[in-house]
Amino acid sequence: MGRLTGGDPSLLRRINSAVVLHALRASASPASPTLTDLVKVTGLSRPTVEGAVEGLIESGLVEEASAEEGVARRQGRPARRFRFRVEAGHLLGIEIGAHRVAVLLADLSGRITGAASAEVAETAPADERLAQVRTAVTDVLRRSGVPRDALRAVGVASPGIVEADGTIRLGTALPGWTGLPLGDRLRRSFPCPVLVENDANAAAVAEHWKGAARDSDDVVFVLAGLSPGAGSLIGGRLHRGFGGAAGEIGALHLLGREATPEEVLSPTDVPLQPLDEAQVVRVFALAREGDEPARTAVDRYLRRLVHDVAALVLALDPELVVVGGWAAGLTGILEPLRTELARYCLRPPRVALSLLGDSAVATGALRLALDHVEEELFAVNPRTP
Amino acid sequence: MGRLTGGDPSLLRRINSAVVLHALRASASPASPTLTDLVKVTGLSRPTVEGAVEGLIESGLVEEASAEEGVARRQGRPARRFRFRVEAGHLLGIEIGAHRVAVLLADLSGRITGAASAEVAETAPADERLAQVRTAVTDVLRRSGVPRDALRAVGVASPGIVEADGTIRLGTALPGWTGLPLGDRLRRSFPCPVLVENDANAAAVAEHWKGAARDSDDVVFVLAGLSPGAGSLIGGRLHRGFGGAAGEIGALHLLGREATPEEVLSPTDVPLQPLDEAQVVRVFALAREGDEPARTAVDRYLRRLVHDVAALVLALDPELVVVGGWAAGLTGILEPLRTELARYCLRPPRVALSLLGDSAVATGALRLALDHVEEELFAVNPRTP
Repeated sequence: MGRLTGGDPSLLRRINSAVVLHALRASASPASPTLTDLVKVTGLSRPTVEGAVEGLIESGLVEEASAEEGVARRQGRPARRFRFRVEAGHLLGIEIGAHRVAVLLADLSGRITGAASAEVAETAPADERLAQVRTAVTDVLRRSGVPRDALRAVGVASPGIVEADGTIRLGTALPGWTGLPLGDRLRRSFPCPVLVENDANAAAVAEHWKGAARDSDDVVFVLAGLSPGAGSLIGGRLHRGFGGAAGEIGALHLLGREATPEEVLSPTDVPLQPLDEAQVVRVFALAREGDEPARTAVDRYLRRLVHDVAALVLALDPELVVVGGWAAGLTGILEPLRTELARYCLRPPRVALSLLGDSAVATGALRLALDHVEEELFAVNPRTP
Repeated sequence: MGRLTGGDPSLLRRINSAVVLHALRASASPASPTLTDLVKVTGLSRPTVEGAVEGLIESGLVEEASAEEGVARRQGRPARRFRFRVEAGHLLGIEIGAHRVAVLLADLSGRITGAASAEVAETAPADERLAQVRTAVTDVLRRSGVPRDALRAVGVASPGIVEADGTIRLGTALPGWTGLPLGDRLRRSFPCPVLVENDANAAAVAEHWKGAARDSDDVVFVLAGLSPGAGSLIGGRLHRGFGGAAGEIGALHLLGREATPEEVLSPTDVPLQPLDEAQVVRVFALAREGDEPARTAVDRYLRRLVHDVAALVLALDPELVVVGGWAAGLTGILEPLRTELARYCLRPPRVALSLLGDSAVATGALRLALDHVEEELFAVNPRTP
């Protein structure tokens, strides 16, 4: 509690600067705010606001709004108006997946200004996959005319359990991924912080930002594939778990020495190929046409998915479950999930489909980069743990 | 962020008072602190500290330490010393279980100063169970010489899903429990706040306070019985879930339309009685003696327990799993749990037995009452969300 009474003048300047920047950014009036507006909104003194605005202009984050803008000129010199320069920096959100890499570029408001993606062979070794990432990044920066040193933060989402420093603790979905120091490898390519996150976690963040979970702070996002993963928000904050492994519910079926997912969804004695989505779609199509072995296989698959999602729901008690990943696009996924959860969960959550679909993971990676920058720019006391 | 710049003098007084009280309570020096000590520790001005101490003495929370105490008298009048009166108020922690009710009494430091418990028939209706609670409370207050109006907060732990207002949303373990407004019913008996919590949640809090989870902030406590329940701490804070139902993992087995727990652990075709613990102990004893049907039943039971705990671990990724409840006392529970979790969880947690045993639930209820009082007394800004 000592910090309440401490008096660090540089910290105080920093706080005031953040308060003014926040007010500039949040300004909802038709015209950019004047110094008088900022004094009113922040409750700070006029000299303090003036000092903060000068510093922000020097740093490039704020500029004087053009004279034409805003209220009609009356007599005399019009009051100076100021705006937050959302173009003062840029962010990247990167998805690294089994079949493709995708990159989103955004300004400091989080508005997306560019995108690139590339197919990657599912068997591609880590180096090749990372080379594809770098190519896609170079591509989007060049096409958008954004210099690399304008990047303020880069978010990266990848399958696997991600350690706090961005190392992949376990990543069986991609060749050569387990043990890969993904954060360190990518940091060499960027002049700014690189944040690495699990793909389902990133997707959960994305759905909360601009997808199906905008209205809920307690969410489980299920990345439904052959074997499901999940990301959770608790009170609006990502729950990573003690070792970054929260939500890896796909491992549950291993406990009973049960069939692998590839066996579960196979209508024959031959397991499916783990990453062959077309094959999976074919099984679902056959089931819809009434093919008996395919229907049995799909039933088995759905029962297991429901069981895994129920385990997450019972453990966490979210308000909302959002189902994404490729399996979310399959007909007949949502209803059994909803019905069974309503039947067996003691406090059943709402169940919704992902609104962001394929772009959820990269969007979440972008949001994590934006969170990082906002914390730096706007947090009143970023040093407080 | 406006509140940084606001100036509410009564809030400021309250903050200063809390800071001084906190310093008094935390004082680790051999003698009670003087005003000069408090000025040094808090960073507040001497008049502010004097004012705060006067107010605290008026409220009964602080008193002048006796003259004999502390440093040897030198020349002149010795400096006045002050102490936090831990006896200025009392707390109760109440466990309401299937077979018994238990009450713990403590002072404002959380030190336990009294205890009472009573057997209750598992078939007792809600009114009878509550009457037993009241009797046990009256008993412990009388024996300890604590007047009822000295109570500052009461924590109550009960099986079932507990709503924020203390109503039991679902409580199948106790007759007449579902829908019971437990908080309201008990509030009539007390002149202070009554906080109701799920029993496994309370036990998790207790193990973190003074049990097996003292060194970890990310804990799953498993209340192992025929059907397990669980409570979780994330970052040291209780995770209740959106509707207070987090951790109710015992419902998971229902999904597969599987056998009930009473069938799973029965060595015959006749299910066990849900609440007959002696019967359960008999099955485990038979299994140890080599009785084949009993061994099969125990194996089934352990496999399900491992599955349920694994589901919690995969969903939450805790640092530590603490196993309590009556099943924790059975030989042969811990090792299979530890081995299987290490085998199948992607980031296996440590697994430990409860240190508090039978007293975990009541102890956790007491801690919740203490949390409430500390928040009131010591929080710098309790109104901040």
